[in-house]
Amino acid sequence: MSFDVLQGKIDALGNPTVMGLDPLPEYLPPEMQARHFREKGATAAAVADAFYEFCCGLMDAVQNIVPAVKPQSAYFERIGPEGVAVFKKTQEYAKAKGFYTIADIKRSDIGSTAQAYSDAYLGAIRVGEGELRPFDFDAVTISAYLGTDGVRPFLENAVRYDKALFTLVRTSNASAVELQDLEVGGEKLYAIVGELMEKLAAGTEGAQGYTRIGAVVGATWPEELRALRARLRRTFFLVPGYGAQGGGAADVAGAFDAGGRGAVINASRSIICAWKKTGKNGEDYREAARAEALRMRDALRAVL
Amino acid sequence: MSFDVLQGKIDALGNPTVMGLDPLPEYLPPEMQARHFREKGATAAAVADAFYEFCCGLMDAVQNIVPAVKPQSAYFERIGPEGVAVFKKTQEYAKAKGFYTIADIKRSDIGSTAQAYSDAYLGAIRVGEGELRPFDFDAVTISAYLGTDGVRPFLENAVRYDKALFTLVRTSNASAVELQDLEVGGEKLYAIVGELMEKLAAGTEGAQGYTRIGAVVGATWPEELRALRARLRRTFFLVPGYGAQGGGAADVAGAFDAGGRGAVINASRSIICAWKKTGKNGEDYREAARAEALRMRDALRAVL
Repeated sequence: MSFDVLQGKIDALGNPTVMGLDPLPEYLPPEMQARHFREKGATAAAVADAFYEFCCGLMDAVQNIVPAVKPQSAYFERIGPEGVAVFKKTQEYAKAKGFYTIADIKRSDIGSTAQAYSDAYLGAIRVGEGELRPFDFDAVTISAYLGTDGVRPFLENAVRYDKALFTLVRTSNASAVELQDLEVGGEKLYAIVGELMEKLAAGTEGAQGYTRIGAVVGATWPEELRALRARLRRTFFLVPGYGAQGGGAADVAGAFDAGGRGAVINASRSIICAWKKTGKNGEDYREAARAEALRMRDALRAVL
Repeated sequence: MSFDVLQGKIDALGNPTVMGLDPLPEYLPPEMQARHFREKGATAAAVADAFYEFCCGLMDAVQNIVPAVKPQSAYFERIGPEGVAVFKKTQEYAKAKGFYTIADIKRSDIGSTAQAYSDAYLGAIRVGEGELRPFDFDAVTISAYLGTDGVRPFLENAVRYDKALFTLVRTSNASAVELQDLEVGGEKLYAIVGELMEKLAAGTEGAQGYTRIGAVVGATWPEELRALRARLRRTFFLVPGYGAQGGGAADVAGAFDAGGRGAVINASRSIICAWKKTGKNGEDYREAARAEALRMRDALRAVL
């Protein structure tokens, strides 16, 4: 089962990290984009080529250290259709390299439209007599504001194609409190969302006891994280907010179950922009990413 | 101001309709996709070409009847990157034809990532020395579950580029009640979301008195729709759920203000699949869409 596969990769490397791939142009080594501009002119296609080189270089650098990658769709969409083509190519490269792949898309819609997103990112579509897997990620992130009928098409494809999904429960940003912390009959809204999702996914548990619907719970709220872990015992956690957003290893310790499992910690900028701290203008972006990934792995091992 | 432009187009045609462009392959006349398959083989590229022909044909058919179009990103993403390229081309065609264009993307994320989505769909990015407008829609739909810091980047670009956005308040699907209707201190969650957004947008009102943050409120909940209209006096409404989802003209009457303004009613399948009811196998998809758009316009005029 999909989360068993993820946990297996985590166990094999002794590292519950997912590397977030957030290719903003200013995160790339300056030489890289300039080189692609010389080749193709200052075009979206050149930026897309630079993104692909950057993402592949980062994956090469952390291979056999980090078990999973999470491309953030927004940064690819930001440069238009050429970026979306590279989003797909990045998934293909990641899969070939053995990474567990999470599409950070945070989509949400009514059932019929959710079906289209689900088919795109987790499932397959028919084209003539053949079948096409448009993006074919192992897992996606989605929002549950529309309720269960917007989530069910993702769950169904997760079962059918052995995939998984993470719904937004408690996000890592400062404004998360505005709606997610509202009290409903003595309960916080985010806890209600978490419970609703665990219930919806009941019966899809794998060997590790986790269902196919995981939860996004930010590292920036360590108390809530620990309380949710105690409460949602069958829910795998994706924890953003480590590193550049302020969360540290001690903050995320509460995300794991008693056996040190059941969660994956995301770091994006702290790894992919690690080159900015070495004074080499990005020449060493791979070595810097690798060193930071090792530091993060060791910091997480120390609290597990 | 963006919503003044939309209201102006509505007034000019006497029709507060937006045509939803939801190109699922089964919604296309059978001959159309078959013809593109003969040209390019049964590929995603051929499906994308067929989508573009279909969307352009529909826009030609309702031009001077319907003032706005709303391409649903999910159906384009569903066929992969080729679909996203056609999403952009569809926006360009719509703009050239004089339609107000709404990207139905329902994105949501933390501030830095919301900025990337906002730049992609409403704003601009720098590429080398130049500026690129990746998708350049007039408005987008977004979800506000992450709170105001995930909405602000859209509002800022709306102000800067004279665009607008609609946040999900009360959606048209059956499960909307599960979370959106939860009671928080005597108030429904969706009303709290609506108020929070109206407050955030204060000061961005145009000549018609509406701010740059509109609200998605489903036609399938006529009582809630009427109550929200009375409450959110500065919020422009986008109302999905008319036609195939069950809402009729009487159900949406409550969406408009006392002057018959302040809302746009979406219909997707009822217009774009109107050919399925004429027994001509899709030969007449343009005439059927046009006839249905006229019927809908007249039904809305009768209750306004």
